[in-house]
Amino acid sequence: MERSLIAHLRRSLPGHPALQLGIGDDAALLDFAGADQCVISVDVLTDQVDFLVEEADPRRIGRKALAVNLSDLAAMAAEPVACVVGVVLPRQGGHELALGIAEGMAQLAREFNIAIAGGDTNSWDGRLVISVTVIGRTTPHGALQRSGAKPGDRLLVTGRLGGSILGHHFDFTPRVREALHLNAHFDLHAGMDISDGLLLDLSRLCEESGVGARIDLAEVPVSPEAERLARRPDDTRTALEHALADGEDFELLLAVSPEEAKKVLADPGIELTITDIGCITDQPGLQAKDAEGRVRAIEPDGFRHDFD
Amino acid sequence: MERSLIAHLRRSLPGHPALQLGIGDDAALLDFAGADQCVISVDVLTDQVDFLVEEADPRRIGRKALAVNLSDLAAMAAEPVACVVGVVLPRQGGHELALGIAEGMAQLAREFNIAIAGGDTNSWDGRLVISVTVIGRTTPHGALQRSGAKPGDRLLVTGRLGGSILGHHFDFTPRVREALHLNAHFDLHAGMDISDGLLLDLSRLCEESGVGARIDLAEVPVSPEAERLARRPDDTRTALEHALADGEDFELLLAVSPEEAKKVLADPGIELTITDIGCITDQPGLQAKDAEGRVRAIEPDGFRHDFD
Repeated sequence: MERSLIAHLRRSLPGHPALQLGIGDDAALLDFAGADQCVISVDVLTDQVDFLVEEADPRRIGRKALAVNLSDLAAMAAEPVACVVGVVLPRQGGHELALGIAEGMAQLAREFNIAIAGGDTNSWDGRLVISVTVIGRTTPHGALQRSGAKPGDRLLVTGRLGGSILGHHFDFTPRVREALHLNAHFDLHAGMDISDGLLLDLSRLCEESGVGARIDLAEVPVSPEAERLARRPDDTRTALEHALADGEDFELLLAVSPEEAKKVLADPGIELTITDIGCITDQPGLQAKDAEGRVRAIEPDGFRHDFD
Repeated sequence: MERSLIAHLRRSLPGHPALQLGIGDDAALLDFAGADQCVISVDVLTDQVDFLVEEADPRRIGRKALAVNLSDLAAMAAEPVACVVGVVLPRQGGHELALGIAEGMAQLAREFNIAIAGGDTNSWDGRLVISVTVIGRTTPHGALQRSGAKPGDRLLVTGRLGGSILGHHFDFTPRVREALHLNAHFDLHAGMDISDGLLLDLSRLCEESGVGARIDLAEVPVSPEAERLARRPDDTRTALEHALADGEDFELLLAVSPEEAKKVLADPGIELTITDIGCITDQPGLQAKDAEGRVRAIEPDGFRHDFD
């Protein structure tokens, strides 16, 4: 339902002469006459969905709220500049909570040299909500968008996927530096961060690019956490299924030409595994190639917000 | 409690070389090398506090969520450029709600030529939350800030105050055009929008400027709605008290030199009443002069978010 809503909004919402890229990508691009492009993105996190207030240290909650937004800037290969933060606090314990959140957020902000430039503090009888909006700017190498993937391109991912729920969803490092480096040194056709699961996000990249993709299942880098999850008696998924569909990896997904892929893989220049997991195809939809070489269609499974 | 929290954040949060004005004003200023300054502000609205989902048309809710943010740009005398919107929808009826909100928001966005540049849609088992972040840019006349009021300055307000709860809080027109016009044609020392009540917001302007203020109670422009409210049998405030302390007027409060005040009042060049309601003093704190000329200290009453 969210998808059709976004499609609707994209068609019906007004633009602006300075708006170069709006709804549909990871962030919006604004042209500030003669200056670098301004990149802006918002993410809202809620108690019970993105974290559990009763269990998590508020500093980790604050850190995560900013980190997921920085991941959106990474997805655009944009330099972070500033963020503004809106919080809705439960009345009871709200002050303490706000302080912890700010502390965790500020620490990550310093690491990534991003200003916390403003905010809005509210309280209510409901649960904690945090909204963070980040502003970044593009480098001379331009913004990394979802829309440039071409049939034949190789699909690259950073890091290892799946099992984020075991802790990575709090502690991940947004791939800002890696995205800036890769965008500066290689010709990237398209890219995004993997936030809702590899398959679902890949399907979005394909849709924006008007292409399809085929994944080599044997090549998908499965995280140790995905393996651990799959070994649990009550778990119904394989480690690979976790890697394909679990949300909150916050790794980078890139589409580059086969020649460029070779260069990236030979010497990416970053301290992070990069894996070739498949290719872009001219037929829409996702396909999976298993270890025996059999190819079948695969559904874009992943995390979605359900409402009706 | 919110005040000490903000003071704490202001001291402890990291800055950025491009951040020219951060927490403590209505919006933050970002310098985008060689370009106009980028102005960014966030406001979060919640069900039961800022509106009642059961009673209000979702379009009015969406309009209000953007309008309060535009009022922040007006407060800075900034030109609106774009906004991003985060919503947290109740699962039941969320889709319908989101459409209505977007419609109301889009209509106002068109009126003010501001792009809705992106967003984040979430759902949960709680009540509706809307977070809007606006981006604007300053004109060659610079940003209007809270910090420039000087002892002897006259205090001017646009429109009439109080009784917003009767409908104005949904239907108000953000004073963007008026602020841009006044800032372009007059030397404004300081200014802000009145969102939490005249007295409370005036006390904030005074604090940022390191001054005090004296209000001529007989001059405060009381709205017909404030009069209506005060006539209700169950209402405990006078119309003047409503005008002084009710939230969500979204009018402009300006500090200008006595000479400049004369020029503004003689020909403001906008279709809106402007009233001289008092002056800036060198002693901190607020004072009120009544119709008989008696002066007494007055507390900055207004709307605050309570939490502990």
